[in-house]
Amino acid sequence: MGTDAAPALSVTRSDVLAAQTRMGSQVRRTPTMRIEANQLGAHPAFWLKLESLQSTGAFKARGALNSLLATKIPAAGVCAASGGNHGQAVAWAARLLGVPAAIFVPETCPDIKLRRLSDYGAAVTVIGAVYDESLVRAEQYAAETGAVMIHPFDQQLTVAGAGTVSAEFIEQVGGLDSLLIPVGGGGLLAGALAALAGSSTVAVAVEPYSARCLGAALEAGGPVDVDVSGPAVDSLGPRRVGQLCYDAAVAHAVQHVDVSDKAILRAQLAAWEELRIGLEGGGATALAALLSGAYIPAEGEVVGVLVTGGNVDLPQLLRTAASGKA
Amino acid sequence: MGTDAAPALSVTRSDVLAAQTRMGSQVRRTPTMRIEANQLGAHPAFWLKLESLQSTGAFKARGALNSLLATKIPAAGVCAASGGNHGQAVAWAARLLGVPAAIFVPETCPDIKLRRLSDYGAAVTVIGAVYDESLVRAEQYAAETGAVMIHPFDQQLTVAGAGTVSAEFIEQVGGLDSLLIPVGGGGLLAGALAALAGSSTVAVAVEPYSARCLGAALEAGGPVDVDVSGPAVDSLGPRRVGQLCYDAAVAHAVQHVDVSDKAILRAQLAAWEELRIGLEGGGATALAALLSGAYIPAEGEVVGVLVTGGNVDLPQLLRTAASGKA
Repeated sequence: MGTDAAPALSVTRSDVLAAQTRMGSQVRRTPTMRIEANQLGAHPAFWLKLESLQSTGAFKARGALNSLLATKIPAAGVCAASGGNHGQAVAWAARLLGVPAAIFVPETCPDIKLRRLSDYGAAVTVIGAVYDESLVRAEQYAAETGAVMIHPFDQQLTVAGAGTVSAEFIEQVGGLDSLLIPVGGGGLLAGALAALAGSSTVAVAVEPYSARCLGAALEAGGPVDVDVSGPAVDSLGPRRVGQLCYDAAVAHAVQHVDVSDKAILRAQLAAWEELRIGLEGGGATALAALLSGAYIPAEGEVVGVLVTGGNVDLPQLLRTAASGKA
Repeated sequence: MGTDAAPALSVTRSDVLAAQTRMGSQVRRTPTMRIEANQLGAHPAFWLKLESLQSTGAFKARGALNSLLATKIPAAGVCAASGGNHGQAVAWAARLLGVPAAIFVPETCPDIKLRRLSDYGAAVTVIGAVYDESLVRAEQYAAETGAVMIHPFDQQLTVAGAGTVSAEFIEQVGGLDSLLIPVGGGGLLAGALAALAGSSTVAVAVEPYSARCLGAALEAGGPVDVDVSGPAVDSLGPRRVGQLCYDAAVAHAVQHVDVSDKAILRAQLAAWEELRIGLEGGGATALAALLSGAYIPAEGEVVGVLVTGGNVDLPQLLRTAASGKA
């Protein structure tokens, strides 16, 4: 990381605290739980925050709601391109606030996610073979109608909203030495770094080997496109990390850990078999780092792990496990 | 309930507190969560305790562990008759303490539960078409070998252990006006009544119409055999309520609420779709009372709901839902 002066961060701890106040009980204060050593495999004791129990099943609800609450919404409402958790989050927040939402999703979006978007009352447009085509159409729509486009991660209000997960976690357990955080586009990590500013808690970024846009950016000296695949690709699948996250990660010299696809699947299975909770691949990625030994805490280190999303096709996960692939 | 003096309860609050001390962190301090109004359907705000995240997936771990810790275990170890949560709990506690466990299960026990019993290291004997035949064999085994038989609900140590769930819940949320509790054999309710003694929290007993051994006992003036069926029968299936529970329920003039099979299935689905947690039928029965309106709190009443077990065949539940039966 060299000896350059750290760049000013675009999102501050006070932005996160403002988001917390703004949202109040409109997002769920998700539970935390002490997991003693060796309960989910071979691992030391740690604290778990069950953000998979959040509205919409993922932490994305926080960034979307904070964005909508802090933005003047025109009559045309809001729009987003996402067949995944961000789309659900924008649709959910829009319904909560009574504003129109237009969500553009690629043809690969599964029926269950389309149904949920419709249940939230969003206008859903299936367009494009891949995400990038949906994004182009959403941008056109915003330009034509004046609807506010909500970015999934690389926007200040999204990052500040996402940061409330980490702020809440620290409040609930009274301090952590380290906090393991999954990284996709990096909104959650950027938010955590803002929330943890001035504290003694160190953030640890965790990515799948199969979707490591932050790791590649740290090696290349800036965000670059990477190929993505694997069990976490539906939630940690951005090809390029957000600039806000990259800058914050460099400024804090964040420790970066990679986990294998198999470690992620095993963490998903352990969460179901031992805790009876559903975790999607991305939601289980930070947990996988601890359970697989990719991250080994120091003796006595108080570790926190964020599980961030529960939108898993559980019957499919169990079939994969039964087939011996996990 | 008349004006008779209340009979002395066999399990006291100090028995529950002793169980809590005895077990310490060997049982999980399961999380609680505030659920705001209308998050899981049409309902007022309430507190949820996620005991489905307990070791073995059910509160039964507490009664079994307390029994084993407070009993001198002979070389022959312990035994139980149960293809369900109690059998898992006894096998788990025995492994934790390094004593042998023999579990007798009926032929109807599903493979997954047999596998889990074996994973805990128990000696499993599949015997009898129905539970009662397994029970006879377990009693023979105890008589022949000197193994200690652990009863699933109608034993003081089991009840005191089960009571720690309610004591912990009150500690975590700082007081409740009412606490909704599912009833099978009644160990959980008897334990709750002991734990809540001297407090202002009122316990509410919830049973399925399809398995209402406490309701029938209250009407008949004493425990009687009832037919049992429905989605909660695998965990709330005892045909006759325990005497400890019956006596305590009468002494406290406990309010009793019935819920339909459909309400239970809907509560299981709501828990999965909105919280991404697995709940078995019995585990969702108290939640069903609130979500279905079978129990309607007073204005401002601070309500707690225990969800008690997560050992659900989730793919099967989702198929039932897709078929339109839930």
